[in-house]
Amino acid sequence: MNFGSSLVEKAVEEFSRLPGIGKRTALRLVLHLLNQEEVEATAFGEAIIKLRKDIKYCEQCNNISDLDICDICSDLHRDHSIVCVVEDIRDVMAIEHTQQYRGVYHILGGIIDPMNGIGPGDLKINSLLAKFATNEIKEVILALSSSMEGDTTSFYLYKKIEPHQVPVTIIARGIAVGDELEFVDDVTLARSIINRTPYESVLTTK
Amino acid sequence: MNFGSSLVEKAVEEFSRLPGIGKRTALRLVLHLLNQEEVEATAFGEAIIKLRKDIKYCEQCNNISDLDICDICSDLHRDHSIVCVVEDIRDVMAIEHTQQYRGVYHILGGIIDPMNGIGPGDLKINSLLAKFATNEIKEVILALSSSMEGDTTSFYLYKKIEPHQVPVTIIARGIAVGDELEFVDDVTLARSIINRTPYESVLTTK
Repeated sequence: MNFGSSLVEKAVEEFSRLPGIGKRTALRLVLHLLNQEEVEATAFGEAIIKLRKDIKYCEQCNNISDLDICDICSDLHRDHSIVCVVEDIRDVMAIEHTQQYRGVYHILGGIIDPMNGIGPGDLKINSLLAKFATNEIKEVILALSSSMEGDTTSFYLYKKIEPHQVPVTIIARGIAVGDELEFVDDVTLARSIINRTPYESVLTTK
Repeated sequence: MNFGSSLVEKAVEEFSRLPGIGKRTALRLVLHLLNQEEVEATAFGEAIIKLRKDIKYCEQCNNISDLDICDICSDLHRDHSIVCVVEDIRDVMAIEHTQQYRGVYHILGGIIDPMNGIGPGDLKINSLLAKFATNEIKEVILALSSSMEGDTTSFYLYKKIEPHQVPVTIIARGIAVGDELEFVDDVTLARSIINRTPYESVLTTK
């Protein structure tokens, strides 16, 4: 495509590098920005530059943060003896949104995915294991995706945590609230029967 | 949503102002940028700032340009006596892509759309009419969308150009190449019969 302007071409190229954005969408976004006031387009550009330059990662859990320790880890009202292991910060946001969890997190920064060249060495596993040195951790909750890569990572972590004699739990796999039984896949349905829970637990978590 | 970082929050907010991008997509894009090298994220932000700050609009046709006169208007091999009137630069790109047009353009910067508060005064109509002062224009082609607003704008322009005694044409409305007759709407089908063209014209534009 000939854009008639190298500035537009460059901006379209940059936008179309983002996941899920093709050349056509990129052009639409660029034309939208051109129609904005200069101060607004500048604010947008500066927000992106600042984001990457000034972002900090929590020294304890790896969460994004404006300070050296994130809001969750510095919250004394939370239970620091329970650590929930997640893949990335989106999972933290999702779990926080439920308002059901009062422990802290450990963000791996990915999952073991050999097909994409991601091995255990690329993840924040050592800093997780270092937490067990003080005997303050009472439980580790594995909250990874229920994919092959997620299950592999969960198993790998379980084997690594086992020698530290810290109880490891995994979030329940089962039928989603609102799902109809007849449309649920076999594996999930089988797991939901094997991992059945006392009916009282349903009553208390309502 | 609690992002845990004001930088992320700000970036998500800026992204979700773009058309067709919601909070969830914005967060996905922001996390993608966080995973990039700092130099890449900075290049992205700078491309946007530069785009809006340094962009120029062609003094003759209103097209985006790196210089005061765009590539098309400064091309001496093009026919400057034919002016194709379009809504925005995407239309220029689309027409250029066909490689069938060798005249120049005039970009209105929108169409008359009273529902969204856009009147003739908001469009570059005066600079179009000023082009007729020199008697060098032999034809004006109206290439606007086939919507109610597009048709209204075409009619408005026709009435404004009429006193200058410059021939005005409009791009053909008809059945798109590849369309099946039975699925074409009545108005288009009726127009395609009224505006039927000599069969030879099909043979020469192949």
